Amino acid sequence: MAHEAHEAARERAYVKAITPRSEDYSAWYTDVVLRADLADYAPVRGCIVFKPYGYAIWESIQQDLDRRFKATGVQNAYFPLLIPESIFRKEAEHIEGFAPEVPWVTHVGEEQLAERYVVRPTSETIIGTMYARWIQSYRDLPVLINQWGNVLRWEKRTSPFLRTTEFLWQEGHTAHRDEADAEARTRLMLEVYRDMAHELLAIPVVAGVKSDLEKFAGAVRTYTIEALMTDGRALQAGTSHYLGTGFAEVLGIRFLDADGQLKHVHQTSWGASTRLIGALIMVHGDDRGLVLPPRVAPIQAVVVPVGPQRERARVLEAARGVLRELQAAGVRAHLDDREEYSPGWKFNEWELRGVPLRMEIGPRDLARGEVLAARRDSGEKTGLAREGLGSAVAGLLATIQTSLFDRARRFMDENTREAANLGELKGTIDARRGFVVSGWCGNQACELRVREASGASLRCIPFDGAPSEGRTLEGGGRRCVTCAEEARHTVVFARAY
Amino acid sequence: MAHEAHEAARERAYVKAITPRSEDYSAWYTDVVLRADLADYAPVRGCIVFKPYGYAIWESIQQDLDRRFKATGVQNAYFPLLIPESIFRKEAEHIEGFAPEVPWVTHVGEEQLAERYVVRPTSETIIGTMYARWIQSYRDLPVLINQWGNVLRWEKRTSPFLRTTEFLWQEGHTAHRDEADAEARTRLMLEVYRDMAHELLAIPVVAGVKSDLEKFAGAVRTYTIEALMTDGRALQAGTSHYLGTGFAEVLGIRFLDADGQLKHVHQTSWGASTRLIGALIMVHGDDRGLVLPPRVAPIQAVVVPVGPQRERARVLEAARGVLRELQAAGVRAHLDDREEYSPGWKFNEWELRGVPLRMEIGPRDLARGEVLAARRDSGEKTGLAREGLGSAVAGLLATIQTSLFDRARRFMDENTREAANLGELKGTIDARRGFVVSGWCGNQACELRVREASGASLRCIPFDGAPSEGRTLEGGGRRCVTCAEEARHTVVFARAY
Repeated sequence: MAHEAHEAARERAYVKAITPRSEDYSAWYTDVVLRADLADYAPVRGCIVFKPYGYAIWESIQQDLDRRFKATGVQNAYFPLLIPESIFRKEAEHIEGFAPEVPWVTHVGEEQLAERYVVRPTSETIIGTMYARWIQSYRDLPVLINQWGNVLRWEKRTSPFLRTTEFLWQEGHTAHRDEADAEARTRLMLEVYRDMAHELLAIPVVAGVKSDLEKFAGAVRTYTIEALMTDGRALQAGTSHYLGTGFAEVLGIRFLDADGQLKHVHQTSWGASTRLIGALIMVHGDDRGLVLPPRVAPIQAVVVPVGPQRERARVLEAARGVLRELQAAGVRAHLDDREEYSPGWKFNEWELRGVPLRMEIGPRDLARGEVLAARRDSGEKTGLAREGLGSAVAGLLATIQTSLFDRARRFMDENTREAANLGELKGTIDARRGFVVSGWCGNQACELRVREASGASLRCIPFDGAPSEGRTLEGGGRRCVTCAEEARHTVVFARAY
Repeated sequence: MAHEAHEAARERAYVKAITPRSEDYSAWYTDVVLRADLADYAPVRGCIVFKPYGYAIWESIQQDLDRRFKATGVQNAYFPLLIPESIFRKEAEHIEGFAPEVPWVTHVGEEQLAERYVVRPTSETIIGTMYARWIQSYRDLPVLINQWGNVLRWEKRTSPFLRTTEFLWQEGHTAHRDEADAEARTRLMLEVYRDMAHELLAIPVVAGVKSDLEKFAGAVRTYTIEALMTDGRALQAGTSHYLGTGFAEVLGIRFLDADGQLKHVHQTSWGASTRLIGALIMVHGDDRGLVLPPRVAPIQAVVVPVGPQRERARVLEAARGVLRELQAAGVRAHLDDREEYSPGWKFNEWELRGVPLRMEIGPRDLARGEVLAARRDSGEKTGLAREGLGSAVAGLLATIQTSLFDRARRFMDENTREAANLGELKGTIDARRGFVVSGWCGNQACELRVREASGASLRCIPFDGAPSEGRTLEGGGRRCVTCAEEARHTVVFARAY
């Protein structure tokens, strides 16, 4: 805070420093990340520092997801960061997918190691190695474990939150007696992600299954939730993989079933990461900066005293009372009582930082027995009676949460368009981006042809053919967008982050 | 759980499998770690896997410390795992202390890196590098940041929780305007650790300052809390360092003070790690296994239905009612309704796993309107009225918490002995270990002489000369335990983990 205020004091044209989205979306994004004090670039290739305000958003996400996971019977555990090369190399598709981008630890101090270690890009192999020790009988199943931690992937192009060399995430790893149980868990965890996206982040998503080309290296099936950013590009916001018995076979994870047979476990893995913060910025943000849905916001309401200096003591005392009342009502409230900044400057700053509600209190409000509440999402201002303020604010925050979700859903619906052939698809993607719904024959060559022609990838095959919840597409009878053969699937294409 | 039960089913002589402490303390420790299902050895040199039960204890510690940190104005943030060699090498004492045990990332995929990265053993250098960017004015100070994360140190001898290649910890890093402010923060965080040890872990500690020989590489002063294990060895349970301006000078962390002068910040760092779990085991555990203080226990009360099979349905229904009532009273309760194990077997298992309170419920208890509560710490059994059970159990848990602390404090007091000279010190350490209180001239040669002669190191120079709270030592007039010159300090020696 102190730093941020100081930085800003040196540049009074604070908000003006944000590039408008229409001018350069990517510059706008970076401006928001840096100016809202979410993160800074680190002197480590492709890495960022999560500054307190950005990290606090991650803490909100963690708490929410952790509670949801535990409610489904999942427990947390922690496995080593370093994976011995011999273990990492056991699953062929997996190593092929990750090998080019993994960092290798080769030395300790002055000594060269006999066996190199990979710094984990994901933990299927090391966790599976332990499961092989722990699981002997069908009575040991299911094993439902999640890990919160850091992983490294040396991606070619990096961007704060969206794709960084190191990122924070959770990875769930479960083992089951049969495919049906594993598949049910895979889908359950996708639903957990969808619920979190809707209820916490106010982000509507399309849920479905990935094509083989887009699935996780080593998975049989990858389920995904896909969100639409305000520049019309898609962002994969969480994935859940049914791994089949592939890892179990190479790692020897077997159990004695009730029928006396030795069988391989069926596994799942599922993850969501700090890139969700990037999604939050790009779904809700505007040209004035960040817009945070109340449930995920570290500060839900900021109290700003206004009015002339001679009234300051009285106003400040009232503002402290408002702060206490809001906190007592369970609102994450903050009082901005800094002397060195004007109210107007503070308004701009808290707008930039996306605080859902600004509470202004001055002599006139005092006289009226009111506090002025200004909504970040709509700009709307309402005088709230000082009496019963806590519950009124809690109610207003709930309204903002819903309103942000509805707005994002409208945007997604309006930017979901059909295309009957490659020309139409390319035309829509080039001109307006968004989600493009098409038929697909299921042939990888046709999928690749779309990517080459338009830069759009197959985001998913949505459940029940509906790309947007609450909206049913005209079903059936589609033809493949590329080859015009009969479509096996209705799919969603988009350019993606 | 499922796994653990299965493992145990294969060895009915479950509890007998724990080596008695008197026979081999180190084997006892390992038995508790593995049998109580806290951790397992990983196929990575010196690393363990934190299994769900062990990790849940860490989650309790994290939540408690995180709350305490935030109450003092600290915010969390996250900095990169990898530190470029050029940055890591900036502070001479620091690199000298850590260089032999750091892992180096030299390659990514097939490519050799132009500059190597060290996998962080601690983050002073990378965090300081960012502070140099963020701090310009005295108005930016203090900066109060904490990081939860993993670090790696390639120690020669490793032991689960106590010393592992990778461990989980928090590291706080603060920057201040002057020494007084930094020193106050250093001491404040030591108090936070002491309070956490007392109130959460029920572990009494001696708080004081380290000798130069024992201080952190790069610190001006290191404060520590030292706990005494039941084998009479000391364990450093948390440290807080005043770093002076050393890192600020080499990293260029300067600010413009109100007097117009450009000055270096004064810094602190402070950390506590998963080795606290090792302390919990060795302070409270006994020959039946783990003993967990209620506040830190993932499961505070386990409900076990007993009695003949024909009564099972009725008893189980009552047990479920008990579970609900305990949970409603805020007790972390668990119902062990497994069919395949006898009550006696379950009793042993939950004792081994250190659950503070076992609630037995059977037909006779039902008839009496009671539940039988068995304390893990004392073995004491009490019939508790079913009416008002929730608050009675909460009260009993509070009693257990206090009782464990008192017992540990008595043990520490009884095992704190004076020694006037090296012969006495060596005699006490060899025969009985414990804390040995002596005079010290302040000369490093004398300190080293004690270590060579007895294997005991100087744990700390306790605040106000009292090694154990609530007990004041005969003060003043001591002579150095080694050279018999006038003592500058009263110090505590012990063999340590």
